[in-house]
Amino acid sequence: MKAIVFESGKLSFEGARPAPRPAPGEALIRVTLAGICRTDLEIALGYMGFSGIPGHEFVGVIEECGDERLNGKRVTGEINIPCGKCAYCRRRMGNHCPDRKVLGILGKDGAFAEYLTLPFKNLHPLPDSITDEEAVFIEPLASAYEILEQVRVDEDTRVCVLGDGRLGLLVAQVMAQTGCALLAVGRHEEKLSILKARGIPTRTSIEGLTRELDLVIDCTGSAEGIRTALDLVRPAGTVVVKTTVAGKSEIDLSRIVVDEIALIGSRCGPFQPAIQALEEKRVDVRPLVSKVFPIDEGVEAMRYAGEKGVLKALLKMA
Amino acid sequence: MKAIVFESGKLSFEGARPAPRPAPGEALIRVTLAGICRTDLEIALGYMGFSGIPGHEFVGVIEECGDERLNGKRVTGEINIPCGKCAYCRRRMGNHCPDRKVLGILGKDGAFAEYLTLPFKNLHPLPDSITDEEAVFIEPLASAYEILEQVRVDEDTRVCVLGDGRLGLLVAQVMAQTGCALLAVGRHEEKLSILKARGIPTRTSIEGLTRELDLVIDCTGSAEGIRTALDLVRPAGTVVVKTTVAGKSEIDLSRIVVDEIALIGSRCGPFQPAIQALEEKRVDVRPLVSKVFPIDEGVEAMRYAGEKGVLKALLKMA
Repeated sequence: MKAIVFESGKLSFEGARPAPRPAPGEALIRVTLAGICRTDLEIALGYMGFSGIPGHEFVGVIEECGDERLNGKRVTGEINIPCGKCAYCRRRMGNHCPDRKVLGILGKDGAFAEYLTLPFKNLHPLPDSITDEEAVFIEPLASAYEILEQVRVDEDTRVCVLGDGRLGLLVAQVMAQTGCALLAVGRHEEKLSILKARGIPTRTSIEGLTRELDLVIDCTGSAEGIRTALDLVRPAGTVVVKTTVAGKSEIDLSRIVVDEIALIGSRCGPFQPAIQALEEKRVDVRPLVSKVFPIDEGVEAMRYAGEKGVLKALLKMA
Repeated sequence: MKAIVFESGKLSFEGARPAPRPAPGEALIRVTLAGICRTDLEIALGYMGFSGIPGHEFVGVIEECGDERLNGKRVTGEINIPCGKCAYCRRRMGNHCPDRKVLGILGKDGAFAEYLTLPFKNLHPLPDSITDEEAVFIEPLASAYEILEQVRVDEDTRVCVLGDGRLGLLVAQVMAQTGCALLAVGRHEEKLSILKARGIPTRTSIEGLTRELDLVIDCTGSAEGIRTALDLVRPAGTVVVKTTVAGKSEIDLSRIVVDEIALIGSRCGPFQPAIQALEEKRVDVRPLVSKVFPIDEGVEAMRYAGEKGVLKALLKMA
């Protein structure tokens, strides 16, 4: 099969990589479309020490699984593959299983290929009303919904989303669902216009903002964003951190202590509300697609995805 | 009056400082005994840019207040003096009022003197069963109880307190009240023996500990302690930070994000549970007193309080 492979520190296209074979309990999925995420770019820089096929945002079709009636079904899938036995798995916290594999990120070949395997129970069937181009956003959209699993947000909550990249635009749209007093801050009028079109107030600068925000969500992808978040959150407020920065970052801890701020890390989230939001057209991901590349041009697509101003680059398999 | 004064970067004893005069709503307190806290040592190094009389842990007697029947009452007092008008004050979050003064820390002369003034409503009368030497611990003990206002702790919670200084020993005793699975980690067998005597398991090293703790409370007073806390807390667990470190500290943010850890700053807390715990002898602060100095030797006492191995140094006014 065709695949994009990261091995020995090098990213390359392979035209005849052996297709994976499903283990017991797994399904074989023919991938239709995959999304390139910031994490994939980090992986190509050595993050997680990953070796193999990257990619974890996908839509595909079941080719083979335990139940023949399901063959041919369109699906997407959750990316964490927990051991199923440890204390975390027993507490339904499989996303934090210390022995987990993660599709295209940790110990498991991913979605930048014509085929992938995933445990059957990780799969979510897709309604026809969600297109392939929309469905590749379910995983990052789920990660945006994770914030609502962690923090209470209602109409009285003053929320600021920092960052107008792919994730920031999804998080802002998810926050808008809550009816909260929302502000999105980014650097690019063009990207922010996607939010403006949905009635979300935006700014390109934090100038004049005071420490009055109940919740600041950092989606900037830089340690600077977390420092900005700490400058904007009110005393006893909450900062949710979506940014993963390799290595150590400098943080003003005395501000956290004196003002009793809660800094909460946030990663993968629940698929069901993400699927439902797309089905009900409450979130619009279509303007986020910058370009679709054939898998053969996957290396170029990864380079392109890292360029300034680019939102989401997709890989089409056939 | 006699007072310890920090002015123009210098700490000194003054024998004839004018006594403060109570503003409307304030009481004049004759200070009996005051405790030297780590924050006082930081203030003498320039922290908060404070100038005046430091000191915020005290016990005293009301000399003058709006209600004559209360003159002569033994009291201690809450240290935050909020404006009473802003959004925080209206939400009963006066401890976070941006215009607050703080006794001996921010814009208000403190307790290292024969007299201080505080708003009448900041005062807590003391039962006879609590001695002066115990009562000076109410403020730091309240700060330990603040953790229980912020985080749910019960018999199933695996808790580790890092640091066997003054605050760590108080926090560990407060945590022990909850019936949680508790471990206190410090560097000094002698200090930890205070906890051992109360049946609290202790260790002088984290060697062999794995990432299985639900809650790690950093009372080490160093940025290194927070890094250790992040090494010990389980995924989706909580780190409470009591340590204030001036300047920026280096933190591994990707660990916080990938493992969805909540890092929560914690400062001043509720006086009532602290007073009650001392009254019911559930917390023992007496072994924490290292030495009592007369106010005349306050500068020497501050130096002594910063020495290794010293727990609490007190200043006696008369």
